[in-house]
Amino acid sequence: MELTLSSAQYGLVFNLFSLTVATMAAAGVFLLASRPQVAPKYRTALTVSAVVVFVAAYHYVMILQSWKGAFELAGGSYVMSGQPFNDAYRYADWLITVPLLLVELVAVLGLTRDKARPLFRNLTIAAFAMIALGYPGEIAESASTAWIFWALSMIPFLYILYTVVVKINAAIADQNAEIKSLLTSTRAILLISWWVYPIAYLLPYLGLSGAAGEVGLQIGYSIADITAKALFGVFIYRIARAKSEADGYDLATRAQPAPTTA
Amino acid sequence: MELTLSSAQYGLVFNLFSLTVATMAAAGVFLLASRPQVAPKYRTALTVSAVVVFVAAYHYVMILQSWKGAFELAGGSYVMSGQPFNDAYRYADWLITVPLLLVELVAVLGLTRDKARPLFRNLTIAAFAMIALGYPGEIAESASTAWIFWALSMIPFLYILYTVVVKINAAIADQNAEIKSLLTSTRAILLISWWVYPIAYLLPYLGLSGAAGEVGLQIGYSIADITAKALFGVFIYRIARAKSEADGYDLATRAQPAPTTA
Repeated sequence: MELTLSSAQYGLVFNLFSLTVATMAAAGVFLLASRPQVAPKYRTALTVSAVVVFVAAYHYVMILQSWKGAFELAGGSYVMSGQPFNDAYRYADWLITVPLLLVELVAVLGLTRDKARPLFRNLTIAAFAMIALGYPGEIAESASTAWIFWALSMIPFLYILYTVVVKINAAIADQNAEIKSLLTSTRAILLISWWVYPIAYLLPYLGLSGAAGEVGLQIGYSIADITAKALFGVFIYRIARAKSEADGYDLATRAQPAPTTA
Repeated sequence: MELTLSSAQYGLVFNLFSLTVATMAAAGVFLLASRPQVAPKYRTALTVSAVVVFVAAYHYVMILQSWKGAFELAGGSYVMSGQPFNDAYRYADWLITVPLLLVELVAVLGLTRDKARPLFRNLTIAAFAMIALGYPGEIAESASTAWIFWALSMIPFLYILYTVVVKINAAIADQNAEIKSLLTSTRAILLISWWVYPIAYLLPYLGLSGAAGEVGLQIGYSIADITAKALFGVFIYRIARAKSEADGYDLATRAQPAPTTA
């Protein structure tokens, strides 16, 4: 792949990567520090949310370094230096964070352990399949290979999205208005941000080739990652907080009322 | 040693090292943050588990840098730059982390102090012997030297593995079903991941020489480290959590019931 980027194109991607590092790390500190604000049973959801964004922050540091190394300034434009830009960081990141994002969600929905375990096992297998099937297409030289792996990867993708939306819908039913609204927003964040990935993946094959395709892909992935990880994490916190309040968790004494014998 | 790696071989090892950094650090954040989720007497096990994975994360950053420096891109392949790839980082890591991994396990099994101390002393001496005897073979130029030190190193290796499995078996006996199942899984993680080390060590002498042998060795060590440290640490947490619950530790009030006078 030979690309020549304008200074504006190179800088836009570079600065967006840096912004993503800062956003992910910021979300991580917030989520870790906010654990005592929620009832103990929701704290693991926050811990896992923090881990997800810290892992993403690490990967964006590496992606930023790789981007810097892959290009060099030549006569006002950025040409490829010969060092490859490493796309694999994103896939390594997703291998770790996608299963953990699903843990967050399952943990905050408060499913019983015997319901949560098989659900989580199926979702994790699907997540690995989705990522493993996407990668050969990402690094493919030919459009037909890219399309085939895209289509294969979409099968577990759609399974995950469908399953998660069904579980959120079921969880919405018996909640108060505030939690209902938060779960509805979380569902929207998930549905919108997740669809960016398969679309960004296809950009280079949808007529947006060369520099514009590459820049579009990187912008799409970065904004989707911020939404699906940092913003999603903040909503996990808000749901945990609202559920803690609904359960009668007292922030001042950090105690919950004794269960009433009905 | 002269090696020429394909771009895919170099990249696979590089990306696996980076994934290992992220996984170890992620496990460290999770284990540190999860300490309040377990009863006070199991918290040291979690602290030590966190230390182990943070030390491993540091060493994988150094290993990744060393890998990067040891090769250079020449005509589409990666040839050795003249800078040696530093294997000693792994041995330095094991010197610190193997005794600590044994501390984790002994701590979570909840042995009495007078039983834990001599056990831990013997295991630590064996761990140092195992690592010190392995290193001369790792850097050996001749196959016969490598095999001799492998065989010597296997004596303390087998002593450690046998002792630890006996202790886990004894601990399984009087636990509830959940803890039994977690201890069984932990034993499996230990048995499977530990055997990767002596096998990976021998790969270059088992017909898998040159680039394929080196790549196989690095993949084997990295996956074994993730399993024996990060996954093992998560199971230490799960055991600690289940034991805390079985002991009556109340997550909400962070109190344990007063011992009943039977």
